[in-house]
Amino acid sequence: MNVRGRAMRTIWPAADGRTVEIIDQTRLPHELAIVELETLDDAARAIATMQVRGAPLIGAAAAYGMALAAAEDPSDNAIETAMSKLAATRPTAVNLRWALTEMRRALSEVPESRRFAAATVRAGEIADADVAINHAIGEHGAGLIIEAWRCKGRAGRVEVLTHCNAGWLATVDWGTALAPVYRAHNEGIPIHVWVDETRPRNQGASLTAWELGEHGVPHTVIVDNAGGHLMREGLVDLCIVGTDRTTAGGDVANKIGTYLKALAARDNDIPFYVALPSPTIDWEIESSAAIPIERRDAGEVTHIEGWTEEGRRVTVRLTPAHSPAANYAFDVTPARLVSALITERGICPASSEGLLELFPERRRRVVRE
Amino acid sequence: MNVRGRAMRTIWPAADGRTVEIIDQTRLPHELAIVELETLDDAARAIATMQVRGAPLIGAAAAYGMALAAAEDPSDNAIETAMSKLAATRPTAVNLRWALTEMRRALSEVPESRRFAAATVRAGEIADADVAINHAIGEHGAGLIIEAWRCKGRAGRVEVLTHCNAGWLATVDWGTALAPVYRAHNEGIPIHVWVDETRPRNQGASLTAWELGEHGVPHTVIVDNAGGHLMREGLVDLCIVGTDRTTAGGDVANKIGTYLKALAARDNDIPFYVALPSPTIDWEIESSAAIPIERRDAGEVTHIEGWTEEGRRVTVRLTPAHSPAANYAFDVTPARLVSALITERGICPASSEGLLELFPERRRRVVRE
Repeated sequence: MNVRGRAMRTIWPAADGRTVEIIDQTRLPHELAIVELETLDDAARAIATMQVRGAPLIGAAAAYGMALAAAEDPSDNAIETAMSKLAATRPTAVNLRWALTEMRRALSEVPESRRFAAATVRAGEIADADVAINHAIGEHGAGLIIEAWRCKGRAGRVEVLTHCNAGWLATVDWGTALAPVYRAHNEGIPIHVWVDETRPRNQGASLTAWELGEHGVPHTVIVDNAGGHLMREGLVDLCIVGTDRTTAGGDVANKIGTYLKALAARDNDIPFYVALPSPTIDWEIESSAAIPIERRDAGEVTHIEGWTEEGRRVTVRLTPAHSPAANYAFDVTPARLVSALITERGICPASSEGLLELFPERRRRVVRE
Repeated sequence: MNVRGRAMRTIWPAADGRTVEIIDQTRLPHELAIVELETLDDAARAIATMQVRGAPLIGAAAAYGMALAAAEDPSDNAIETAMSKLAATRPTAVNLRWALTEMRRALSEVPESRRFAAATVRAGEIADADVAINHAIGEHGAGLIIEAWRCKGRAGRVEVLTHCNAGWLATVDWGTALAPVYRAHNEGIPIHVWVDETRPRNQGASLTAWELGEHGVPHTVIVDNAGGHLMREGLVDLCIVGTDRTTAGGDVANKIGTYLKALAARDNDIPFYVALPSPTIDWEIESSAAIPIERRDAGEVTHIEGWTEEGRRVTVRLTPAHSPAANYAFDVTPARLVSALITERGICPASSEGLLELFPERRRRVVRE
């Protein structure tokens, strides 16, 4: 998507044919810093410190990290070491493990002398595949936005509410929940996005607002508390969020607070859509009760980072020194509250039946087992 | 309630018999600063800058402000000027206007020479009346907490979720939503409070957490997004919130985000109680559609204030420089989502019929008109 009028991805090979460049997302929204990854260690650090984040982008960054490792030392031993190092950066990311396994496979098939070249090609393919999936999600989801605009008699603008950052910054390009928004915007549909700030890490306020602003999509930042009121007042036409994991039954684990917005959407007869690349479907789990919910450091609740007027990045305390805090990172929105799932293969009801219609190969597998 | 083991109110006459002292709430939770109000101007400034806030406390502070004015100049002209000045501090506060009218009445009945003494007595009565109302709310509400504990077989502790600050800091003492919590805690019921931080002004994280901690009530600060997950996980036994205005039909206007918690409580069969002193009932309005929702400065969303490790109070920006923000201060929770109202006269269903059972004088008035 566009940054300062120029198309960008979150990660790309540099002009020298070896280095990889990324947007340092820890500096956003106040500074656009491009960081060069020259070594395996650079790539591992970028993932661990969340300079790159978002499951699809983590996968692509790990793939490029394996290419950097192959440039340094293409031996089998070195490749195994690199894989372990990258796998340890974010222990729970599914895409990370998938990308590493895929890279090892690609590298094992060629002699050492050709491993760097093969790794570079395969990493690029992994990045491009993510873009293709998100582009397809955008195409299917944009239809829902265009339909909402038709329902409004093509007057005014389509009001979308989103939570957290499921935009292009979480992927290589396009994003998941925001792909339909960009697609509709690019096609000239008047659209406006209510951006939940998404406490405690504020990915909405810092990342979603930034990327929408840079691409020229009208938007307004709100506190997470505000969405219910907006829906009651008729100021939201539809909600679109992303997901970290969707069960085979259509339950959706996503950033903490998603469930509250789904309840408000249901209470006000507003469609609540979840956009997901199919790799985030967990076919092994039918019900959400089996999804473990990560509890993160309480410091993310008690303290917050922001920028002073002088441009200094400062962390400040928000709570009394002796008050404990709890930090649940995700919640589960039951399938009954999800109007539809938007995948790269199309749109389906949030149910086993709905998902299996789009992914019939999973039906056959289930029958066989 | 207790601060550092000693009982305190939010406002009290100083030992000199003339000055009034307050807790400067803008310094909480990081500093307990007592401010002396010596003049009418001091009192007006304390209300305008939110050193004192919360409708009941604003009323008491305005009453004491009138006493300070009478000490400076007890003439009719000066009293009128003082009233205008105090009325202008927080234009929408209902209790402020009521307290000022009441003080003018009390002052008009005595000669100038006795006005300061009369004003001091009447201001003290107004403060004490607030304490009495909240104490009664606490008594009625504590019954619900004790009942919840019985239902748990007197095992573990009662888990309460609250939003914003409706504690003793918003009143002269006891608070509204937290009065039942303090009462139950004082009676030895094991209780734990989930404290919504309550963006954007963070009254939960800064004020509710502080006052619960000082009184020794176990509590945990959470982001506003977390409550739905906690309820789904069975970690909340009941919710209690305050209200800025309740309609004659039982709809509740309260801090933005209240509605989302009420939806989650309903979805998980958890009681959702609203504690209210009867002066906050708006008998003129049946439906919430007539309640205007205040929109405040977007700067409260884009920026946040906190304390650095070195103890400096610093404001930092959270959002991109060019992203607009919207700041809706309240939302409305429809009566259908409220399990019961807790008033100083007892507990009733959130409905016209329920309220009129407790306040039958309002029924007669309606019939007469």
